Amino acid sequence: MNPADAITTAHSIAERLRADAVERDYANRPPHAEIELLRDSGLLALDPDDHPTAHAVTRIVAATDASIGHLLGYHYLHLWRASLYDNTELATSLRQEAATGRVFVAAVSNQRDTITATTTGDALSVSGRGVFATGCAVADRLLVSAIRDDHTARLVVVTRGAGNGVSHPPDWDNLGQRLTASGSIAFNDVRVSRDDVLGTFPAHDEESNPRRLRLSLVALAFQAVLTQVLVGIADGAIHEAAKYTRESSRPWPASGLEQAIDDPHVLAGYGELVATLDAARLLADNATRALTQADTRGLALTPAERGRAALTVSAAKVVSSRLATEATSRIFEFTGARATARTTGLDRFWRDARTLTLHDPVAYKARELGAFLLTDRYPPMTANS
Amino acid sequence: MNPADAITTAHSIAERLRADAVERDYANRPPHAEIELLRDSGLLALDPDDHPTAHAVTRIVAATDASIGHLLGYHYLHLWRASLYDNTELATSLRQEAATGRVFVAAVSNQRDTITATTTGDALSVSGRGVFATGCAVADRLLVSAIRDDHTARLVVVTRGAGNGVSHPPDWDNLGQRLTASGSIAFNDVRVSRDDVLGTFPAHDEESNPRRLRLSLVALAFQAVLTQVLVGIADGAIHEAAKYTRESSRPWPASGLEQAIDDPHVLAGYGELVATLDAARLLADNATRALTQADTRGLALTPAERGRAALTVSAAKVVSSRLATEATSRIFEFTGARATARTTGLDRFWRDARTLTLHDPVAYKARELGAFLLTDRYPPMTANS
Amino acid sequence: MNPADAITTAHSIAERLRADAVERDYANRPPHAEIELLRDSGLLALDPDDHPTAHAVTRIVAATDASIGHLLGYHYLHLWRASLYDNTELATSLRQEAATGRVFVAAVSNQRDTITATTTGDALSVSGRGVFATGCAVADRLLVSAIRDDHTARLVVVTRGAGNGVSHPPDWDNLGQRLTASGSIAFNDVRVSRDDVLGTFPAHDEESNPRRLRLSLVALAFQAVLTQVLVGIADGAIHEAAKYTRESSRPWPASGLEQAIDDPHVLAGYGELVATLDAARLLADNATRALTQADTRGLALTPAERGRAALTVSAAKVVSSRLATEATSRIFEFTGARATARTTGLDRFWRDARTLTLHDPVAYKARELGAFLLTDRYPPMTANS
Amino acid sequence: MNPADAITTAHSIAERLRADAVERDYANRPPHAEIELLRDSGLLALDPDDHPTAHAVTRIVAATDASIGHLLGYHYLHLWRASLYDNTELATSLRQEAATGRVFVAAVSNQRDTITATTTGDALSVSGRGVFATGCAVADRLLVSAIRDDHTARLVVVTRGAGNGVSHPPDWDNLGQRLTASGSIAFNDVRVSRDDVLGTFPAHDEESNPRRLRLSLVALAFQAVLTQVLVGIADGAIHEAAKYTRESSRPWPASGLEQAIDDPHVLAGYGELVATLDAARLLADNATRALTQADTRGLALTPAERGRAALTVSAAKVVSSRLATEATSRIFEFTGARATARTTGLDRFWRDARTLTLHDPVAYKARELGAFLLTDRYPPMTANS
Repeated sequence: MNPADAITTAHSIAERLRADAVERDYANRPPHAEIELLRDSGLLALDPDDHPTAHAVTRIVAATDASIGHLLGYHYLHLWRASLYDNTELATSLRQEAATGRVFVAAVSNQRDTITATTTGDALSVSGRGVFATGCAVADRLLVSAIRDDHTARLVVVTRGAGNGVSHPPDWDNLGQRLTASGSIAFNDVRVSRDDVLGTFPAHDEESNPRRLRLSLVALAFQAVLTQVLVGIADGAIHEAAKYTRESSRPWPASGLEQAIDDPHVLAGYGELVATLDAARLLADNATRALTQADTRGLALTPAERGRAALTVSAAKVVSSRLATEATSRIFEFTGARATARTTGLDRFWRDARTLTLHDPVAYKARELGAFLLTDRYPPMTANS
Repeated sequence: MNPADAITTAHSIAERLRADAVERDYANRPPHAEIELLRDSGLLALDPDDHPTAHAVTRIVAATDASIGHLLGYHYLHLWRASLYDNTELATSLRQEAATGRVFVAAVSNQRDTITATTTGDALSVSGRGVFATGCAVADRLLVSAIRDDHTARLVVVTRGAGNGVSHPPDWDNLGQRLTASGSIAFNDVRVSRDDVLGTFPAHDEESNPRRLRLSLVALAFQAVLTQVLVGIADGAIHEAAKYTRESSRPWPASGLEQAIDDPHVLAGYGELVATLDAARLLADNATRALTQADTRGLALTPAERGRAALTVSAAKVVSSRLATEATSRIFEFTGARATARTTGLDRFWRDARTLTLHDPVAYKARELGAFLLTDRYPPMTANS
Repeated sequence: MNPADAITTAHSIAERLRADAVERDYANRPPHAEIELLRDSGLLALDPDDHPTAHAVTRIVAATDASIGHLLGYHYLHLWRASLYDNTELATSLRQEAATGRVFVAAVSNQRDTITATTTGDALSVSGRGVFATGCAVADRLLVSAIRDDHTARLVVVTRGAGNGVSHPPDWDNLGQRLTASGSIAFNDVRVSRDDVLGTFPAHDEESNPRRLRLSLVALAFQAVLTQVLVGIADGAIHEAAKYTRESSRPWPASGLEQAIDDPHVLAGYGELVATLDAARLLADNATRALTQADTRGLALTPAERGRAALTVSAAKVVSSRLATEATSRIFEFTGARATARTTGLDRFWRDARTLTLHDPVAYKARELGAFLLTDRYPPMTANS
Repeated sequence: MNPADAITTAHSIAERLRADAVERDYANRPPHAEIELLRDSGLLALDPDDHPTAHAVTRIVAATDASIGHLLGYHYLHLWRASLYDNTELATSLRQEAATGRVFVAAVSNQRDTITATTTGDALSVSGRGVFATGCAVADRLLVSAIRDDHTARLVVVTRGAGNGVSHPPDWDNLGQRLTASGSIAFNDVRVSRDDVLGTFPAHDEESNPRRLRLSLVALAFQAVLTQVLVGIADGAIHEAAKYTRESSRPWPASGLEQAIDDPHVLAGYGELVATLDAARLLADNATRALTQADTRGLALTPAERGRAALTVSAAKVVSSRLATEATSRIFEFTGARATARTTGLDRFWRDARTLTLHDPVAYKARELGAFLLTDRYPPMTANS
């Protein structure tokens, strides 16, 4: 699927998801039908190295369904990062599967997971529990991060999404991002062969290792995708609210106006949100560009290049987080009281934004930017950045 | 019930409501059990002319259940305003019923209602539909505003909350204030005698009429009660979140801290909310005081006195609306991502605040304050203020 | 001077200071004439233990001249705190002098001062340099904090404001609070007798010492006075700007309005500021009340009582700092471009607010409030609080 | 001068202006020396049709001296707009003069001007008074907008900046943008030939006239230049403050930190400003791009294309105004109290921002954006947009 077609298709999928977004959000079912829609659309087959197109598609879909946009953005991210590890054969095979458009990929890799891989003859036995395993319950393939039983290394293995020994407790009932299937996952003696191991890392890898530097881009990619989803949420909220104001809002009696769309506070209020949305959009695309540049440097990537990309991503994250939180709450001031009926469903944007903006605290992203301004220090490479 | 006992009882009721607030909010059932709890508590018997105690009780209850605080505040308000009309006998009888503690009062009086009262012999027949009839579905007595069939006057009549000809469609399913039973109400040839009429107003009453001036305090009383509820919501949100932070939040890994309660951004963030909460609390009590003063002036109330009270109430409304909206959304930044699980239920505060702050647009309250500053003009006496 | 007269006089002095406030601010001369005006007014003779009146007077004067309000508030504070030390005879004599209305008191006590008191026979020789010595250059009497030459104790002595060995380098040329004469001061072998020593403190006084607890109220009193000055600044800025808007602003052509005072954004903008001003005013008076209560407890004051007073003061400081900074900058949006002519002088409010709000960082006051909410910890007793 | 050289030169000029920016700001002298510096630099010779380079140069210079950046941006703008009129020969000649690098151009065209052009034989006599005539007192050539004496048309004529009949009252003493020489100008029978007339417009030109549409880009160009200056101001403020924090600020004692640059609130505070600065920068460049695109359409420009460009410019203006006002005031919270000494001069950024952001009210720009969102209406073409 070429980039132009992907954008067109994304708009069409977004429109379909918009039609019953409110009902699906309330229903809180694992998004099997939604993933099937993505399979049928061909969007899963997009080239995962083309970050600009992948991120544009993510944002477009997120504007009407932030959960599905989120899952789609992660699917591209996982396919891309698979190629950063040693087992290029496995990565290639995974990409080939995805290129059919029928295979959806998710991952298990939370800091609080307790998943181990034990050597048993020629195979490995994976057991343990993962949390916040976004998308896994509806995925065809999983990238699973596990600790080797002798604690000397961390592995990433590829498994089927369902089947022997993999179970998905139905424990995801969250305020927002309800259709991301981000509940827990349990592995009970799941056997994988050595060919299913994407890569192995010594537990304490040295910082100057170029492979480690390159892999540290993964944290930036996560942030960049989440930023696009946040911009999508703000975009969706503003446009959905504007539609309501235009079609359903009544002017405030004391205003003496005949239409809500002539109210000066409504006009200026929307205008401020639109201006900030433009800003967030430009910053998010700037972040995507920075990631792309750093990615194309391959193993030649320097700490300074990585650092600059990290700062660009953080700036986008800070502004988009603030916008998404504010816009999704303020829109109600422009729609009026009747828009708080549950059938209207305008609150889902705030619930999604509020959930997603807590993924990591924005104050710490801001501190990174402040530290660089004051001391030319680049952000540290932690598991989270 | 004396004021001190009322405050103590309010705290105890608030604590009971807090215990299952999350479940009851999601269940969205008419608050029959909650009103019964109020009946048993004796709180319904409070002197409705004692605005300071009534409003304090309202705020305390609203901090754990904004819907029930709202209903209780309106109950006092309706009992008080009943005495402003001509039929003092009926008002007295209503108060005596309430003084038993077993009678809960609500009202039907929205600008968009289409309720008429037709003279049929010695009686009146009330028919039509009311909207946003807060509390009516669970009320024992109703104050119903109706237009006389010859359109020459507006009446307020007292009816039973349920029974012949009164029906309550189960149509209240709102984002917030879910337990206020604020759906519609239908009257189908409900017969009331002339003794059940609280008062009659010529359709276009002159502005200098002292009775009209006095009745214009009702709009201020509504605003003052809502302001107390908003302060209660902010208070509840901040304290419930603080409890979560203290007991369940984890420090952000990159902070290097061992406890979330030591995070400088969490501490300063809560501190800003607490300071503004103190401000809103003082303003709300100031508004209650202004209402009380204007009320005690009786028919001697002057337009300037009414105007100053209106401005005091508006200032409290502006600050408490801003605080409630902001605090209920920001708390999540101090609790962390796991607090977005639906079982935690912290989002109910934002849903309640967002719903209640739209009751009338705060920009127009701010304009009143600006107009007085610039031109010494007092706020107009409209149906809404 | 009784409280009612003091308030009336304060308004009259404020009006006189208002007349040439802009010119005097630009001229940056030590405020000799202004202090003489205070002497003639009788305001210096106010009972310094009557915090509510003293603070009301401070705020009223600060609204038209923040510097002079600041000096006046400190004068009361220093007279009051003189009585907290051991040498009650000296404190009484100082009060008697002040009661004539002709004696203005200031103090030298900055953490970065390097002032020593050396025993020479029956007398003490004071030498060294003080910084940010607010008001000293125009004061009749000074309270000077000094370190005893053997470093075993800290003293407070009373000296003349001018004369042998005391010099005031003309080094105060600041952005705001320009008329507070807050430059440095130099002492060169200034002789004082033992009777001029207000009190002596062991260098490391134990925390449970009731005298230390009582003296720790001084830091709160400083904060409470500064808070009143900040509220005064916001008040002055809003009213001076409103006068400009009313008398001189033109409507924005694109608005289609005939008068600036009808502009919805101007009206709502001012209204928001007025509402917050009301809030800050109530909080500031609450802080004054808390200080008064703690003060009247004398040596019976408990750490918890002191702690609660500190929190009340901090809340007022947080809100008034935010308001003063914001209001003094935003007013220009309501006056329009021509109000930026230097002759208009509206910028002095921002300069004063910005200077005063940096006295100590408001984030740390907010943290104190957050810490109490989360852990019931009272603010520590440092030199600054 | 090619673009790359222009950028390099701009940085070098900015550094020279930075050296004595504080003193020059306080001195408030007409910027003769500064314009001479620009003449010597070659920057005046830049191709005025190359908006991206012209705007980049403007922003770079504005970061250390907002007044001179402003004058430079207007110089390019006036040279560019000269070519939009009929008299291409005169426009070309003006450009040739500017291409020498020695000729600085300014203009007189305020809505409140009262300048007339009277036909006297073959020549015109220009008389009257202009206000806010930015840069005219130090300009070599002026574009003067005048009303023809018979009131049938509006003319733009080119005159010398000084000489017979042109006088510049020394009446510019403003809060900010002090070196822009934006005082009044008086013309007393200044004779110009018909060849000096750039263009003539019927008083009520029809809206569909392609020339009128093209000329309406001038208002957008003004906004785009001012936006770049605002971004420059914010940039300069943030970096100058950061330098102060790094080199001179002390940590707050209660923080327990050894350096101000480690304070979490300082770091996060700067970080938020930096993120928003990035946003404003991208939006400003987006606006420049939109202007360039619309400009290259020439007389083929459609109302929709013009409308889209106007919206892009307005979004940039809204965000940069908000940022400039906020950043220039907040920086003091990160530098501490001593930075309020007048010698530090950090307040000039706020004074410049506050002055420039009032050029036209940002609420009305926001309303344009809101109107388009709600109703697809493009901003109207008024004299101001």
